[in-house]
Amino acid sequence: MTEEYTVFVGTKPPMSYVMAVLTQFQSGAPEVCLKARGKSITRAVDVAEIVKNRVMPGVKDTKIEISTEHLTAEDGRNINVSTIAITLAKPEA
Amino acid sequence: MTEEYTVFVGTKPPMSYVMAVLTQFQSGAPEVCLKARGKSITRAVDVAEIVKNRVMPGVKDTKIEISTEHLTAEDGRNINVSTIAITLAKPEA
Repeated sequence: MTEEYTVFVGTKPPMSYVMAVLTQFQSGAPEVCLKARGKSITRAVDVAEIVKNRVMPGVKDTKIEISTEHLTAEDGRNINVSTIAITLAKPEA
Repeated sequence: MTEEYTVFVGTKPPMSYVMAVLTQFQSGAPEVCLKARGKSITRAVDVAEIVKNRVMPGVKDTKIEISTEHLTAEDGRNINVSTIAITLAKPEA
């Protein structure tokens, strides 16, 4: 898994990330990692489910990891933000 | 994993679900499954991270599954809702 096969999920509509995943698979990526943090985590799960069930049947989530990032806010406070990384892989991979 | 060791995460503050997980571990559960759907998915990840990092160090997420539930809205439309199931386990388990 190299960084170039990663799609960072933010606040755009889910379908724009679905298209990004599709593009990476079609350009030869054996697997694509969806990463998100905070409230975008739900959207990353939505994107994974749309890819698996509607756009590329056969693609599976082969690894799901959750973690915490420690950030410093502008006012100096420490903030903990949850993150998710969902690896999607083609059946051949 | 039996149904009694499941905590359903909804819209309450994360700490109330953290306490529910703690209670189940303290009453002898070897593992506890956090389940959530839709926008509560992010909260379920937050709860898992708080349990792992702050409340019960040593507890690990041993399995994370995502899926889609097909619901019918009151007006008859079909809705797809993403779901997550995070299994937390004690080190001994």
